[in-house]
Amino acid sequence: MKKIAVVGYGVIGKRVADAIDKQHDMELTGICDIISDWRIENAVRKNYNIYSATQEAEKEMKNAGFSVKGGMTELLDQVDLVVDCTPKKVAAKNVERYKSQGKKFIVQGGEKHETAGHSFSAENNYQTALNIDATRVVSCNTTSILRTLTALKRANLLQSARGTLLRRATDPWESHMGGIMNTMVPEKDIPSHQGPDAQSVDPELDVITAAVKVPETLSHMHYWNVRLTKKASKDEVLNAFKTSTRIKMIRYEQGLVSNNTIKEMFLDMGRPWGDMYEVALWEDMLKVQGDELFYAYVVDNQAIVIPETIDAIRALTGIIEDEHVSILKTNRTLGI
Amino acid sequence: MKKIAVVGYGVIGKRVADAIDKQHDMELTGICDIISDWRIENAVRKNYNIYSATQEAEKEMKNAGFSVKGGMTELLDQVDLVVDCTPKKVAAKNVERYKSQGKKFIVQGGEKHETAGHSFSAENNYQTALNIDATRVVSCNTTSILRTLTALKRANLLQSARGTLLRRATDPWESHMGGIMNTMVPEKDIPSHQGPDAQSVDPELDVITAAVKVPETLSHMHYWNVRLTKKASKDEVLNAFKTSTRIKMIRYEQGLVSNNTIKEMFLDMGRPWGDMYEVALWEDMLKVQGDELFYAYVVDNQAIVIPETIDAIRALTGIIEDEHVSILKTNRTLGI
Repeated sequence: MKKIAVVGYGVIGKRVADAIDKQHDMELTGICDIISDWRIENAVRKNYNIYSATQEAEKEMKNAGFSVKGGMTELLDQVDLVVDCTPKKVAAKNVERYKSQGKKFIVQGGEKHETAGHSFSAENNYQTALNIDATRVVSCNTTSILRTLTALKRANLLQSARGTLLRRATDPWESHMGGIMNTMVPEKDIPSHQGPDAQSVDPELDVITAAVKVPETLSHMHYWNVRLTKKASKDEVLNAFKTSTRIKMIRYEQGLVSNNTIKEMFLDMGRPWGDMYEVALWEDMLKVQGDELFYAYVVDNQAIVIPETIDAIRALTGIIEDEHVSILKTNRTLGI
Repeated sequence: MKKIAVVGYGVIGKRVADAIDKQHDMELTGICDIISDWRIENAVRKNYNIYSATQEAEKEMKNAGFSVKGGMTELLDQVDLVVDCTPKKVAAKNVERYKSQGKKFIVQGGEKHETAGHSFSAENNYQTALNIDATRVVSCNTTSILRTLTALKRANLLQSARGTLLRRATDPWESHMGGIMNTMVPEKDIPSHQGPDAQSVDPELDVITAAVKVPETLSHMHYWNVRLTKKASKDEVLNAFKTSTRIKMIRYEQGLVSNNTIKEMFLDMGRPWGDMYEVALWEDMLKVQGDELFYAYVVDNQAIVIPETIDAIRALTGIIEDEHVSILKTNRTLGI
């Protein structure tokens, strides 16, 4: 049984920890953070072993009444792999420790490709991650781009893709710390970084994106114009998307007309935090016109990378060599 | 001096009335509505002649202490042309009265093309509107599409254009009557109606749009992917856009990073209601890559059609035959 540590118990870390805990072929050895407020109580409630990232944090945690198993070095000593879910750029420093302690590691999409030297998207390049030392699970937006475009590519339909990304302004739990209201804020540069980021996984993709922040917190929405390799029918395109188990076709006519209705459906389904691991793609809105394809979908920025991270753990530790087996196993345990 | 009536004194009507009042070659004979609350006080303040659209409204207006010059028929009797700015689909009924009283008329973009039989965009088809009986000034989004794509077309650069339209959820003054919060609401159909609407002015345009409502009230934002007729430089594209006096090039680096900063700048300029008659297009964000062009701009949904409406009045009444003369005259009086 491979032993796994989660460093950084925030929006992504707490979800990764729970997802690891649900797998039968890996063990969550402990979580590590510096927080000692209400957020860490979630880990206590779940009986996770808690480690502190600094000595100062250990004192504060103990003062706050939390039982601390030890420091980060002691946690790392016990594990085969560490999943780093710390905020942007903190991981880059942690990585030095993982390397010096000889531990395999996974970082999240906020980090640079070079931090791990490999970028991961399960349905695209699981094989290249087998038994390597480190990878980066690409960001939520990039993951959704790779899933959808890889599906079109598998069906030999993809020539080039141009996307407009409407990004949520901030994470829900951080809304009190600042966001945007009653405005839109475009990213300064076109193309935005997500296109090149997708190419860090699949350099063959001809993809260009532009991105804009909108004043909402639920999820991202993408609009795509795709040039196909040939004139195709709507069914051919839908069948291509349906080869991915992590693209959920939804229908506008079913009343799923917005980010909030989609969120509510996943809460109704009993998913933890209402998490949507899938890309929710509007089947009835999708339009094929000659060799051009138009569609829109919604991306849960807090959840989509969770199954990817579980698959990345399996690839790096070599637990499972066939990506289809890993993906289905992950899907089953997470209720996808 | 051509005499003009404005029927419907709402968001567009009150602006059209003021704009007519500023012209030296036409006269605002009166405005006509059914409201008798705070909104009509604006017309009183400006000494506009007030007419009521129904007998019941006339009673209410008089009870509220407003001086009413008469009913709609009496207003129509005096004028050469009526600009109808009533809410969506009300105009279609009014049009029967304009026709039976033999009056030229202009309707706004919420109406169907067939209501007027002609659709108008000053820089594109002023000439076809000369001395005709009726036209429709296309909607704010469509106006912005026509201005920008016509500029590219004039420079022989435009092959096809694919746009994602981020629409403001509701008008500011109506925000208390319902909008959307913390979500996005895509239009059900791709393509959305704006592409075909632009073709009602210029059938040659190869344009496809998708649209989504976002939770803000300030203005629309459009993202475009354009296929050019050839590889071009950024300067060629900028020079094409600069041939329009109603496209304002803005720079992100100047701090104009969002809808709200742009709005504040136009308020600072002393424009009435902070109105932006221009399309505000980000010059530094704009990107040319081979024969592909990417750009984003902001559209003031309350203001952009005002100069267009003034030009339409001149075309239909034949006051000025050369569109350039009319456009410059309108620009000068409105401070563009």
